[in-house]
Amino acid sequence: LIKASIVGATGFTGAVLTDILQRHPEVELDALTSMSYLGRRVDDVFPHLRVKGSYTPYSAERVAASDVVFVCYPHAESYPVVAECVAQGQRVVDLSADFRLRELSAYSEWYGFDHPYEELVGEAVYGLPELYRETIRTARVVANPGCYPTSAILAVAPLASFMGGYPVVIDSKSGVSGAGRNATDKTHFCSVHENFRAYSEVGHRHTVEMVQELSLLAGRAVQASFTPHLLPVDRGILSTVYVMLDADTAAEAGATERVESDNGLHDLFQEYYADEPFLEVSAVVPSLREVRGTNYCRLAARKDAAAGLIKVISVIDNLVKGASGQAVHNMNIMLGFPEKMGLEEKA
Amino acid sequence: LIKASIVGATGFTGAVLTDILQRHPEVELDALTSMSYLGRRVDDVFPHLRVKGSYTPYSAERVAASDVVFVCYPHAESYPVVAECVAQGQRVVDLSADFRLRELSAYSEWYGFDHPYEELVGEAVYGLPELYRETIRTARVVANPGCYPTSAILAVAPLASFMGGYPVVIDSKSGVSGAGRNATDKTHFCSVHENFRAYSEVGHRHTVEMVQELSLLAGRAVQASFTPHLLPVDRGILSTVYVMLDADTAAEAGATERVESDNGLHDLFQEYYADEPFLEVSAVVPSLREVRGTNYCRLAARKDAAAGLIKVISVIDNLVKGASGQAVHNMNIMLGFPEKMGLEEKA
Amino acid sequence: LIKASIVGATGFTGAVLTDILQRHPEVELDALTSMSYLGRRVDDVFPHLRVKGSYTPYSAERVAASDVVFVCYPHAESYPVVAECVAQGQRVVDLSADFRLRELSAYSEWYGFDHPYEELVGEAVYGLPELYRETIRTARVVANPGCYPTSAILAVAPLASFMGGYPVVIDSKSGVSGAGRNATDKTHFCSVHENFRAYSEVGHRHTVEMVQELSLLAGRAVQASFTPHLLPVDRGILSTVYVMLDADTAAEAGATERVESDNGLHDLFQEYYADEPFLEVSAVVPSLREVRGTNYCRLAARKDAAAGLIKVISVIDNLVKGASGQAVHNMNIMLGFPEKMGLEEKA
Amino acid sequence: LIKASIVGATGFTGAVLTDILQRHPEVELDALTSMSYLGRRVDDVFPHLRVKGSYTPYSAERVAASDVVFVCYPHAESYPVVAECVAQGQRVVDLSADFRLRELSAYSEWYGFDHPYEELVGEAVYGLPELYRETIRTARVVANPGCYPTSAILAVAPLASFMGGYPVVIDSKSGVSGAGRNATDKTHFCSVHENFRAYSEVGHRHTVEMVQELSLLAGRAVQASFTPHLLPVDRGILSTVYVMLDADTAAEAGATERVESDNGLHDLFQEYYADEPFLEVSAVVPSLREVRGTNYCRLAARKDAAAGLIKVISVIDNLVKGASGQAVHNMNIMLGFPEKMGLEEKA
Repeated sequence: LIKASIVGATGFTGAVLTDILQRHPEVELDALTSMSYLGRRVDDVFPHLRVKGSYTPYSAERVAASDVVFVCYPHAESYPVVAECVAQGQRVVDLSADFRLRELSAYSEWYGFDHPYEELVGEAVYGLPELYRETIRTARVVANPGCYPTSAILAVAPLASFMGGYPVVIDSKSGVSGAGRNATDKTHFCSVHENFRAYSEVGHRHTVEMVQELSLLAGRAVQASFTPHLLPVDRGILSTVYVMLDADTAAEAGATERVESDNGLHDLFQEYYADEPFLEVSAVVPSLREVRGTNYCRLAARKDAAAGLIKVISVIDNLVKGASGQAVHNMNIMLGFPEKMGLEEKA
Repeated sequence: LIKASIVGATGFTGAVLTDILQRHPEVELDALTSMSYLGRRVDDVFPHLRVKGSYTPYSAERVAASDVVFVCYPHAESYPVVAECVAQGQRVVDLSADFRLRELSAYSEWYGFDHPYEELVGEAVYGLPELYRETIRTARVVANPGCYPTSAILAVAPLASFMGGYPVVIDSKSGVSGAGRNATDKTHFCSVHENFRAYSEVGHRHTVEMVQELSLLAGRAVQASFTPHLLPVDRGILSTVYVMLDADTAAEAGATERVESDNGLHDLFQEYYADEPFLEVSAVVPSLREVRGTNYCRLAARKDAAAGLIKVISVIDNLVKGASGQAVHNMNIMLGFPEKMGLEEKA
Repeated sequence: LIKASIVGATGFTGAVLTDILQRHPEVELDALTSMSYLGRRVDDVFPHLRVKGSYTPYSAERVAASDVVFVCYPHAESYPVVAECVAQGQRVVDLSADFRLRELSAYSEWYGFDHPYEELVGEAVYGLPELYRETIRTARVVANPGCYPTSAILAVAPLASFMGGYPVVIDSKSGVSGAGRNATDKTHFCSVHENFRAYSEVGHRHTVEMVQELSLLAGRAVQASFTPHLLPVDRGILSTVYVMLDADTAAEAGATERVESDNGLHDLFQEYYADEPFLEVSAVVPSLREVRGTNYCRLAARKDAAAGLIKVISVIDNLVKGASGQAVHNMNIMLGFPEKMGLEEKA
Repeated sequence: LIKASIVGATGFTGAVLTDILQRHPEVELDALTSMSYLGRRVDDVFPHLRVKGSYTPYSAERVAASDVVFVCYPHAESYPVVAECVAQGQRVVDLSADFRLRELSAYSEWYGFDHPYEELVGEAVYGLPELYRETIRTARVVANPGCYPTSAILAVAPLASFMGGYPVVIDSKSGVSGAGRNATDKTHFCSVHENFRAYSEVGHRHTVEMVQELSLLAGRAVQASFTPHLLPVDRGILSTVYVMLDADTAAEAGATERVESDNGLHDLFQEYYADEPFLEVSAVVPSLREVRGTNYCRLAARKDAAAGLIKVISVIDNLVKGASGQAVHNMNIMLGFPEKMGLEEKA
């Protein structure tokens, strides 16, 4: 049994992570830290979790015996903990944004703080297993991707090398748990129920993460127009992505036929993700419920011949594949466990 | 008092229409027809409606005394009734698609039937008051627009003359009442609740309606990529529309500055809709609840400078502005009543 | 036009009250006071309200020109305002609990404060028009009833004089707006959606209000066992009330047959509420939606012969008949307006 | 591995049963029968189930190799299948009502059919493990309890021997999946969402099942007044049960102190259910979400001293503990597997 700690364990992602890890056959929970619920029992704070134990304060010493530390702090509060844990020898999966961006300057521009750990940023691996499995294996710091980027990047990746000059349009719809446990006017039941809205309608911070990864995939700078919306559901993200291809590049790659029909697109996506344990290419367009509580990303691609676009629709559970499940997937890869271990049950 | 009949009064749009018309100060309800609920009392079928009267069968004679007939039949069942009523002198607002398309061939292509009333199709007016107010005044047949086209066309209209060559992307999310009262697997509570999905993900019939009207506005053939989604809400449509402009055309029209900032766009939209009683241009992006039960369309435009696109977000109540309220608005225009009459209260 | 002010206008009840009053044909809105939203525009705080004006601070002077003042403060904060307004000549509808209880000691026991206005408590009228219409007409202070008591008392009143010794069981289910606008863990969307719970499961403060009024109706001390529950809906209260009758008393009153069948009960309730503008006795059991946005209380009674009980099911909109609508109904009675004035439209 | 078949596998309970059994370490799925979805793949009908296989027609031969047969047919359609399977040697868990009632006449009175299998009715065991574990072990036919009776009987059982003469009041609220997969006006999203109602408000068929079991527990005929309500949630039942005790009987049993306080009641329930794997006595009142997807029944008892009643609030997932999970629990007992086997994961 390896030991795992969760720093900041009482947010929504912390709770789901606790749930997954305590059922993981190779993991023993070490510290669950929380300031807001210090000393309270896990099953008192989360009555649906049947987990023993209480919340403790965070200190580097408290987690020193852990093989892995999951950090669930907000951005700009996470990196000091990550640095400290790495320094004393833990491997870290960071669920914040603090190590996702490759350009140091991007942190000041998008997140408003100067990142003091240039080296660690350079070393950190973007934890999307479908793209970076091999480097994740040996990483000391895995930057667990944002929920929206996970849903969008996986939808576009198989098409990335044929994209034309038109920006990718990413229209995403998320359940409320994505906004976190903080009780605000925006998350009040009466604000969300029988309602629907866009928010951060231009310039949401996840845009930079998408642009970074899609540009790497495309081999050139690409643009993305991203709009997040708030669904009156608890969990799940559905992204509808509109991609305009460049016919010539597709032809060069011998993909012309593949991108001309729904069947062709299905095959192209199937092959691209052939060995992925958590990627399901679907013939019918998927709905949120199909992945609820699971670590799967399910997607379907469609040719819109009249408009000359390809639409890809992807669904994930934002708290699992979009956060805590993917974090455990990363841990499994880092520690050499079977990739689906602990992730086949509903969270 | 004028007399109004509703043919097919027991669908969702029929019920909302009944509710609005019975409170309209210049209208007396004549016949409410229904085959499914023949002979049953209105307040028995719809306990939330406090309306006297029972459902009768449709016949041309039964509605012969009406000044206006609202036809709420499905497509391909509506046009015979419309033709019959017009022939005997009623003015008609048709809520089906049977007179929305200008090309006769479009009916066979998109709706699978040969339309036998070429002349009436030619004469019918597309009932979007913001675009066709003057011809609506004297029309014998008003083709009440589809719910999605209403939300999309109003969002794009002010920008239509500057659009570039790229397709307009229209990502729409609708409440379940848009799918009608039929109880199916798709409308079962357990299919919709805590769920979200796209449907008719390429080639939804409302696309042709949007393309027709946007092309007329643009003065050339435009493309649109339209994706409808099903929200776990009762009522409302939010459309997120992505438009790429042509800088030169915008410059020619002296609109360069207008389309470069959110404030400029706000002004541009405000002026375009300056005299519209049911169009609200908003500084903040609108949410579904703001228009629930009302005949308003509320919208906001945003410049996505990084991606080089403009986003417009519009909300309507699909049963009111997207159907029955707009139908009454059309009636008000046809009969010379004040446009907001009967439409200031919640439906 | 009379002038009306709302003190504490930015809670849910304040917002609904604003909506109703601004459409009331005999009312001009005077001051809308709020500390939390001081200086902000009404339609900025509540985008669904199409009301001009901004929020001002409360002071006795600021509302001195009003004919009526509606006080929407929490309990123990309301009575000083009520006293002040009455002293300077306004008539007051108080939506808090501060004048609902007749025994001064009840305030310390149930609400934890010593009420300093014995005389005003003695003078205040419990604002349930169905029971106290005549005294409301001339009242200076009307204590608008609680939402749960409204739903429960109206359900039991017609049977009150025949009740047996068994306690009345009142099982109530309320929408979330009943918990107020405060954003808390309990009102977070993710706590309420796809969930259901009881709360204050013994000793909810509304119990004392029910017991007080039911005892007055019965002419003796009665017991009530009341359990409130939180529904994942925005608005509405449904109360299921179980009453065991005393056969002898019913016989003395000549009601034996009336209480032996559903039809008999229907007649008994119909007669009891014959002239009530907002009371609807229904043949089928009512659902929340039938009264949503309205000031109606709809109810149905059933004989459970096997168990020897009568069940009464009542529904109201907690924000309208359970709060702001009833407050306006009280105002209409106090000022001699037609009782339904301003209350026939949806709020 | 034992073999298990599901007859009528495409209702909601069939789907959950499929999900649980395919993950059960000691079970191999044999036949999944369905007429409505004959020949279709499981994961096509239920995209959230990641199960191989297709639906076949039912025949006795088709299930002859199974060790256990689960019958998920409606009442009056189930008993011929049960009889047939038992005759050829299978052990059967019947999820219909066809073997729940002990009096043969009760089937004609409550379910409208004459039951032809008197002997089998006499032999069948009511499958509530908390009450009948020992006889379940060797039963050939286990009559899996109704969802409402499960929630109510478990709430009352510990108090049953002290009940007074008054009827037990059982006020239950259920998610929509309890109404089955049939698409009807009543299960249409627009009928249920933002709504709440009672139904079968007197004489629901589950009443007889409750009365039968509570009378057996009490050792005398007891009365129950049961009202089911429809919650706008997918899954779960919360029952609020009001019990009036007989002080003398409680005293004789030495339980006087136990029933006088919340703590005493907690202890009394804890002891009564001390060894039960799926019964959780809670200090705080439980909510639906705490048991969602699980086979647990969680409950809390409260003394309402003022009214002289005890309230018990219980929650279950109607599809798991209220149907398919309990069915598997019964199978585990029948076949000697550990009771929680296959039931610790979310369904």
